[in-house]
Amino acid sequence: MNFTIQRWAVKIEYDGTGLVGWQRQDNGLSVQQILEEAACKLCNGQFKIASITAGRTDAGVHALGQVAHLDFPAHIPLTAKKIRDGLNYYMKPHAVTILQSGLVDAEWNARFSAIKRKYIYVILNRQSRPALDINHVWHVRKKLNVDAMNEAAQTLLGSHDFTSFRATACQAKSPIRILDKFNVYQIDDKIYFETQARSFLHHQVRNMVGTLKMIGDGYWPIKQAYAILQGRDRKLAGIKAPATGLFLKEITYPDDPFQ
Amino acid sequence: MNFTIQRWAVKIEYDGTGLVGWQRQDNGLSVQQILEEAACKLCNGQFKIASITAGRTDAGVHALGQVAHLDFPAHIPLTAKKIRDGLNYYMKPHAVTILQSGLVDAEWNARFSAIKRKYIYVILNRQSRPALDINHVWHVRKKLNVDAMNEAAQTLLGSHDFTSFRATACQAKSPIRILDKFNVYQIDDKIYFETQARSFLHHQVRNMVGTLKMIGDGYWPIKQAYAILQGRDRKLAGIKAPATGLFLKEITYPDDPFQ
Repeated sequence: MNFTIQRWAVKIEYDGTGLVGWQRQDNGLSVQQILEEAACKLCNGQFKIASITAGRTDAGVHALGQVAHLDFPAHIPLTAKKIRDGLNYYMKPHAVTILQSGLVDAEWNARFSAIKRKYIYVILNRQSRPALDINHVWHVRKKLNVDAMNEAAQTLLGSHDFTSFRATACQAKSPIRILDKFNVYQIDDKIYFETQARSFLHHQVRNMVGTLKMIGDGYWPIKQAYAILQGRDRKLAGIKAPATGLFLKEITYPDDPFQ
Repeated sequence: MNFTIQRWAVKIEYDGTGLVGWQRQDNGLSVQQILEEAACKLCNGQFKIASITAGRTDAGVHALGQVAHLDFPAHIPLTAKKIRDGLNYYMKPHAVTILQSGLVDAEWNARFSAIKRKYIYVILNRQSRPALDINHVWHVRKKLNVDAMNEAAQTLLGSHDFTSFRATACQAKSPIRILDKFNVYQIDDKIYFETQARSFLHHQVRNMVGTLKMIGDGYWPIKQAYAILQGRDRKLAGIKAPATGLFLKEITYPDDPFQ
């Protein structure tokens, strides 16, 4: 059956707790499966709807502003409101919600049209284990030096070979990335790591945060971050920070698809 | 068996989701039960330890800085660190955590020594249902007028008979309370109601927020808040805002018991 399609972009918030991540897996429920099954129901179950995302988050990682696109048959009468409210209705009771939606050109691609990706990582830096933020922070008991971590973060800015901070399973062709922003700051007992790039390597944010944490707790000097970067060897870097503290914050496109 | 006691103050964070509130109940688990059972275990199960709290929060209400005191037999060797870490160990896996603890005089009382109580109420004001903040907000779809709510909130400040905002089951002898502060402001898609008084009547914060919400959505004019206050009749006020959005933020004492 041939039919023309309409491509819709959606901005998604989700709690990654208990999910296997963005991508469909055999061993558990993914955001992609929840979204695509809801999209199928929105078409009365008559069509399988595939989605492409801007950032394939790992198991346990959250999103405040993930973006994906979905191709619907053009003859189904849809509006931005119907996409948002309809998908939200069918995705219940999962902790996945569409914040915005917008019709885009067939050439527009949630993944390849994206020009900036912003992540936030949160460390809860106190003695007591979290109660209100369980699964939404990395709980670190030892008092961390925020200034030292922020200073080290600045040494990673710019265009570099990020092999040292790249997962061994990373499928990207090149280990070169351009880090635009990496700010570390504290509000009350939480430390925020805000970082932005056109794109990141697999596990890059978590591996960079894990290394900064080891600078923050005094295990390494500030200059170690840049030395690790230059070594181009994953074994040199610190531990991978846990998924619970990571939030995909924002995806930027040349034109806002949700206007 | 007679023994002298040592009174310890504790500052507590908890997620009220699924709990019946602060106070022990027959129909479910309470913060008080979780805390007192952990305190008993800290004494090797040899003593029942009773607690008194500054604010008996209702089912589903959260706390960022609840305060309580516990009386331990003085012959048990305890330190502030041991109280905090020991209670946190035994309260696992419940979403209740001790942030600080401190030795206080026997005359000091978490409830009666408190001179200020501060609550925060959070409304998520957007079309899409919450994903990351489930159980931590009141989700209101209709766009609320924050300036109107803040203006109405200011008319409730000062010493008044708050009968209109009091639960029918409220056991306080007097309906007179002095409201020190009631600020309404928005950050992104969340609206915060921050209010402070020496003490509040039962359900007072939730009933005031419910009334302000009906002003914010245009159902009532700004002046209705003060008219309801002057009417001294619970039936005049708006709905009771749900427990999920309420956080006991801070309790103030003449001297900080945690120094």
